[in-house]
Amino acid sequence: MPKKPLILVTNDDGITAPGIRALIQTMNTIGDVVVVAPDSPQSGMGHAITLDSTLYLERVYIDEGKQIEYNCSGTPADCVKLAISEILDRRPDLCVSGINHGSNSSINVIYSGTMSAALEAGIEGIPSIGFSLLDYNWNANFEAAQYFAKTIVQNVLKNGLASGVVLNVNFPKLEQKDIKGVRICRQAKANWVEEFDKRISPQGKAYYWLTGKFVNLDHGEDTDEWALDNGYVSIVPVQFDLTAHYCIQNLNTWNFND
Amino acid sequence: MPKKPLILVTNDDGITAPGIRALIQTMNTIGDVVVVAPDSPQSGMGHAITLDSTLYLERVYIDEGKQIEYNCSGTPADCVKLAISEILDRRPDLCVSGINHGSNSSINVIYSGTMSAALEAGIEGIPSIGFSLLDYNWNANFEAAQYFAKTIVQNVLKNGLASGVVLNVNFPKLEQKDIKGVRICRQAKANWVEEFDKRISPQGKAYYWLTGKFVNLDHGEDTDEWALDNGYVSIVPVQFDLTAHYCIQNLNTWNFND
Repeated sequence: MPKKPLILVTNDDGITAPGIRALIQTMNTIGDVVVVAPDSPQSGMGHAITLDSTLYLERVYIDEGKQIEYNCSGTPADCVKLAISEILDRRPDLCVSGINHGSNSSINVIYSGTMSAALEAGIEGIPSIGFSLLDYNWNANFEAAQYFAKTIVQNVLKNGLASGVVLNVNFPKLEQKDIKGVRICRQAKANWVEEFDKRISPQGKAYYWLTGKFVNLDHGEDTDEWALDNGYVSIVPVQFDLTAHYCIQNLNTWNFND
Repeated sequence: MPKKPLILVTNDDGITAPGIRALIQTMNTIGDVVVVAPDSPQSGMGHAITLDSTLYLERVYIDEGKQIEYNCSGTPADCVKLAISEILDRRPDLCVSGINHGSNSSINVIYSGTMSAALEAGIEGIPSIGFSLLDYNWNANFEAAQYFAKTIVQNVLKNGLASGVVLNVNFPKLEQKDIKGVRICRQAKANWVEEFDKRISPQGKAYYWLTGKFVNLDHGEDTDEWALDNGYVSIVPVQFDLTAHYCIQNLNTWNFND
């Protein structure tokens, strides 16, 4: 019997979030699962790592599944680093992060703790996927996401991923029968326009809440936003070499010696 | 007389760090300077944003310069968002972040609060540069960095930057006379190998400190690491469209419908 793949599961909503419980359940049908996930929500943590304080790891038993689980006091990126360095006795065959409660499409990839965990595993040379569902509800329905996550994971285990690339997968908020399929996409050129909510504390001090409006002026049919708006699962291959190679030639014409 | 450029200055080491004081001093010779920077060190914060708590802004007077300054309770990315949305009465002509105490070359760009501030401004459509000096000392010598930062800023103000691109500038730890010049580079394919320092608390509980070793197996002479090792200032054009476009064709051959 061939050896089962070793799958590391993490997220940024915290180890008890329904999204990661759904992902663990699905991964248990594919391989041997080890979970290392934050003990509290870490949304919007980007690629933060913990340099100035200590990290705790704790073996936990959350449900009846056959997975082995640890919660961690750190960020999603910390979880991946600790898992690889301190917990797993061999390199995992795959890292999956999520299923996030809420979108990580287009520019959200930059702010996303879910994707930073996936990127961290990618940096360590492990094939890696971040999954997100376009539904912020704690009691969201993850059934369709689980179905497609399984298919996508099986493809990655079979075909591998190019070095330096991880997948950013987003699921529309639809039932499985209404999802048209999977589309490989590019990241839409969209962004958040901030609208800070300014308030005055009981002590008379001004403070702000970050809110904002998502603005997408990029209507290309090859974008993740288009795919999601039109009933598809979006997959964007994401890289952590951030070099804008096409700019190098032009920048070489600048004069830095005057 | 032409209007002076409006320059937003921020960092991740905190508003009183010598690196940002040096950058403010240099920017004061070029334009009208507004500083919005964290009230405490934020190194390793990646592109974190504050979603679950409130943000404070406070007008502060730190030294005799003509800049206008605010400190902020949030992350570097929060500072940029607040500056643009709540403080500045027009769009800045430039955002500069740093000068960071320590390298943000190669993969460090992903973990860097300095670069996340620069990227945030870039996402908002503002020409933007992150500056870092390869010297972690609080009393590092920023003179050469100031000299080259001025030249680079003048080039950006004159030539502009392509939409979607910000500059990641690193300075070697050398005196100005020993720096050979400026090189446009790609991000070296290097990474950190974690070495967690595991300890036991007085209460008997295990905890970890994140430490690590920087490993660079990419010796290309077009990389930022090569430039810095060989006495040059490195400039990497960095993009926030993370799509690995070259992978899309191959992924389209996968089968998601079985």
